[in-house]
Amino acid sequence: MTEKRIPQLVKGTRDFDPVQVAQRNYISNIIQQVYRKYGFVPLETPSLEYLSTLLDQYGQEGEQLVFRVLNSGNFLEGITPDEFPQDYKRLLPKIAEKGLRYDLTVPLMRYIAMHHHELTFPFKRYQIQPVWRADRPQKGRFREFYQCDADIVGTSSLLNEAEILVMAYEVLQKLRITDFKIYLNHRSILNGIAELMGELNRVNEFCISIDKLDKIGKDSVIQELIEKGFAKTALEKFAFIFDFQGDNNLKLEILSEHLAGSKVGLQGLQDIQHILRYIKEMGMNTIPISLDPSLARGLAYYTSTVFEIKLPSIQIGSIAGGGRYDQLAKNFGVDGLTGVGLSFGVDRLHAAIENLDLFPKQVHSSTQVLFTNLDDEAEKIALGLLTKIRSHGISAELYPEQSKLKKQLNYANKKMMPFVIIIGEEERSVGKLMLKEMETGSQTLYTLDELINFLLGLEKNV
Amino acid sequence: MTEKRIPQLVKGTRDFDPVQVAQRNYISNIIQQVYRKYGFVPLETPSLEYLSTLLDQYGQEGEQLVFRVLNSGNFLEGITPDEFPQDYKRLLPKIAEKGLRYDLTVPLMRYIAMHHHELTFPFKRYQIQPVWRADRPQKGRFREFYQCDADIVGTSSLLNEAEILVMAYEVLQKLRITDFKIYLNHRSILNGIAELMGELNRVNEFCISIDKLDKIGKDSVIQELIEKGFAKTALEKFAFIFDFQGDNNLKLEILSEHLAGSKVGLQGLQDIQHILRYIKEMGMNTIPISLDPSLARGLAYYTSTVFEIKLPSIQIGSIAGGGRYDQLAKNFGVDGLTGVGLSFGVDRLHAAIENLDLFPKQVHSSTQVLFTNLDDEAEKIALGLLTKIRSHGISAELYPEQSKLKKQLNYANKKMMPFVIIIGEEERSVGKLMLKEMETGSQTLYTLDELINFLLGLEKNV
Repeated sequence: MTEKRIPQLVKGTRDFDPVQVAQRNYISNIIQQVYRKYGFVPLETPSLEYLSTLLDQYGQEGEQLVFRVLNSGNFLEGITPDEFPQDYKRLLPKIAEKGLRYDLTVPLMRYIAMHHHELTFPFKRYQIQPVWRADRPQKGRFREFYQCDADIVGTSSLLNEAEILVMAYEVLQKLRITDFKIYLNHRSILNGIAELMGELNRVNEFCISIDKLDKIGKDSVIQELIEKGFAKTALEKFAFIFDFQGDNNLKLEILSEHLAGSKVGLQGLQDIQHILRYIKEMGMNTIPISLDPSLARGLAYYTSTVFEIKLPSIQIGSIAGGGRYDQLAKNFGVDGLTGVGLSFGVDRLHAAIENLDLFPKQVHSSTQVLFTNLDDEAEKIALGLLTKIRSHGISAELYPEQSKLKKQLNYANKKMMPFVIIIGEEERSVGKLMLKEMETGSQTLYTLDELINFLLGLEKNV
Repeated sequence: MTEKRIPQLVKGTRDFDPVQVAQRNYISNIIQQVYRKYGFVPLETPSLEYLSTLLDQYGQEGEQLVFRVLNSGNFLEGITPDEFPQDYKRLLPKIAEKGLRYDLTVPLMRYIAMHHHELTFPFKRYQIQPVWRADRPQKGRFREFYQCDADIVGTSSLLNEAEILVMAYEVLQKLRITDFKIYLNHRSILNGIAELMGELNRVNEFCISIDKLDKIGKDSVIQELIEKGFAKTALEKFAFIFDFQGDNNLKLEILSEHLAGSKVGLQGLQDIQHILRYIKEMGMNTIPISLDPSLARGLAYYTSTVFEIKLPSIQIGSIAGGGRYDQLAKNFGVDGLTGVGLSFGVDRLHAAIENLDLFPKQVHSSTQVLFTNLDDEAEKIALGLLTKIRSHGISAELYPEQSKLKKQLNYANKKMMPFVIIIGEEERSVGKLMLKEMETGSQTLYTLDELINFLLGLEKNV
C-alpha cells in the first residue's frame, strides 16, 4: 500500500464530535418527545430511492441537486459506443437508477402509496433522518443535513394546520427559543393575486420571483417581475404585500378588500382565518404567527397552506417550514390523499441554539471515574472493582497501560472525567481507595462500598 | 405530470414502521448505554466519503461493493470521446469521486488522521450509523444496514480486548440474549500455522479459504487449499483446527505443542492467554468465549486478535465481530496508531431478538388519549382540553374531522390507543368527560382534573 496524504472530508459534509452529537441528540430528543405527544409515530425510510421515485417531484432546480448513485458492476454494459453522448444528460438514466433521499416527504408518499391499503388514516408520522442535496456548500448550507418531519396525511381538516403550528411552537419553547416568528400564507392567496393581475397561468413564475424577497429585496423582485412581463400597474396594486405591516386581523381585512374579485383568493383568506380560530380555541393565541402573503416557499409540491419559522435576531434563514400538498400521492398512482407537514432543520436549530447560548451545560456526559493503572497489583485490583462499579450503572474506565500518573491524570482531564481513583501501596495496605476530585484536587480515602454510595449519591443530585 | 405506477423500494433496502423503529431504538439505546458505561464517547461521520479514502482498504472483493456517487453537474466535462472506454473501470475514477460509507472503521481512521494532534489517546469512540454495500440482497443481508461500533485507538494493551469482549457480553445480557458464543482467534496463530506449513507468504490465501468453513464445510475447505497448491500432508497436520473441541486451556495446550516451532504462533497464543486472564480478573470468566483457530474474518485490515459472536440456535450468521488493526491509520499518513474494535449489527440483532421472542411487550408506545370529534361544540371544548392535557406530558390527539363515532373508535383501535374521550351533550350538561377504556369497553365520567390525575397515575405505574 502506498503512503497517502492526509484525507479530507467531502465538501459540504461534517464530522460530529462527542459534544456535537450530544447537542444534536438533545435537539432531536426534544422534537421527538413533542411530536409523540401530538400523536405522531416514527417511520424510517432507506437512504437510497429509485430515481423514478425522486424525479418529477422537486421542480427542475431541485432535481439537479439529487445525488445519483452509479449502477453497480459494469454500468456500461449494453451501451453501444455511439450512445456515448456529448450530452451527459442522455447518458444519466442509463448508468444510474438510484439516488440519495432529497427530502423526507417524497419517501413518505412512496411509503403510503405502497401501503395505503393497510394503513389507518389520518396517518400521522414523524421521521428524523439525513437528506442529501448537491448544492453549492456555503455557511449554514450543507450537502448532508438532518430533517425532522411531521406529516398528517389523509385529512383536509384545517385542524391539522393548527395542530402542527402549535406543535412547532411547543418544540421551540422546550428548546428555550423565544425570539421567533411563524410566517403563514396560503397558495390560494397567491393564486388570487395572480388571477387579479390577469396572470393566473403564470402564478409559478410569480412565486419563483417573490421567493427571492429575503435575498434581493422588494425593488429587485418587482424589477424581475416586470422583466418577466408582468404589468407594472398590476404589480403596483399588490406591491404592499412585500412590506405588509399590522396584526393578522388588519391584514385579513385589507387583503379581503384587495381580493374581493377572486373567489380562490377569498377561500385562501377564509382558510387562514379558520386556522387562527382553531389556534385561539386551543388557548394558544399568544403564538407569534404572522400572515405573510409574500411567502411562497420554493418546493414545487405545496398546493395550499405554507409556513416558515424564522429567528429575527439571527441570519440563518428559516429553521422550519412546511405546508399542505394535495398531489404528491397522485404521482404514485394514489388519488385523493392530501397531506400537511412540518420540517425542522436540526443543523439550523443547532446553529441557532449555539448562537443564542441556549444549550444546557450538562448536555455531554463523560465517564465518571478513571481507575489509574500504576503497577500489576493495582491493575489486578482495579479490574475486579471496575466490574463492581459498573454493575451499579456508574461509567468507569481503567487506564489500559501502566503509564506515568501525570499522563493518566491528563487523560482524565481531557475527557472531562470528574473523578480519578488511585490504588497505591499505602491505600492497599489499609484496604481502601483514594478518590481524587479532578476539579478541586481534593483526595479522600474510601472503602469500595463507601465509594459506590458516594458516586450514586452524586447521580441522584444531578 | 404523468400517472405513475406504484413505486418500489430499492432492492436490499427497507422501510421501518413505527413498531420496527421502536424495536431498533430499544436495541441501539441499550448498546449505547453500555458503551458509555465503558467510557466510549459518540462520533458521527458523513455518509459520503471520497473514494480516495474508501478504496485500498477492504480488499478487492470489498472494494467492488462500494456504492459510487456520480459527480454532480456535467460529469463528462473534459472527457474526450476516445476516453470512453470499453472497460467501465477506466471511466469510473473520472466520473465518480465520492462513495457511500462502507463501514465505520475507515471513517474513524480518516477522522483520527485529520485530528490526531488535538485528540486525547487512547481514543475511545462509539458510532451507530448506517453503512452501504452493493452486495447481492438475500435473506438477512441488506444493502443498507446499521452498525454499532466501539473502537479503542492508540493503545496496544490487551486490556482493551478484554474490555471489549466483556462489554459485548453485557450488551447481550441487557438484551436478554443468553444462548451465544464468542469465538476468539489471533492472526498470529494463523501466521504460525502458515509458517509451519511453509506457506507464510500465502497466509492470506489460506485465510480466504478457511473463512468459508461455515459455508462449505471442512472437507471442501481442505480440497480448495489443496487445489491452491497447499501440501496435503501439511494440511492434515493442522486439519484438527476445523473441528477443535475442548475448553480453552486444553486448546491452548494442544496448540502450543503444534506451534512450538513458530515464534509468531506462540506469541499469538500468549496474547490470547493474556486476554483470558484479564477477563478472569474482571470476575467475568463465565463468559462463553471459545478459542477458535479457524476463525479468520474476511476484512483485510485485521492484523492481530479477531473475534465473532454467534447464536448457535439461529442461522443468521454472526451478530457481532471485530479485532485489532495496526495499519489503518498508516494508510492516511499517521504512523504507530493501533486500534481494536467491536461492531454489532442492529439488523441481525433485531432478527435474533424477534426470533427468540425477547422484545419487551411495551417497546412501542402509542398516543394515550383520543378526543373524539362529534360536533362543533365538542370540537371546541376538546381543543381547549387538548392543550391542558398535553401540558401534563400526556400524549393526546383530537380526531381532525367530525366523522362517525365508529370510524373514530376504529382509528383509536388501530393506533392501539388505550383511551378515548367522548364529549356528548349529556357529558357537557354535567361538565364532565366520558373516558372509554378501549380494551375493556368500560366508561367512566370524570372532571378534567380527575381525568388528568387518573392518566398521570397510570403512567407512574408503568
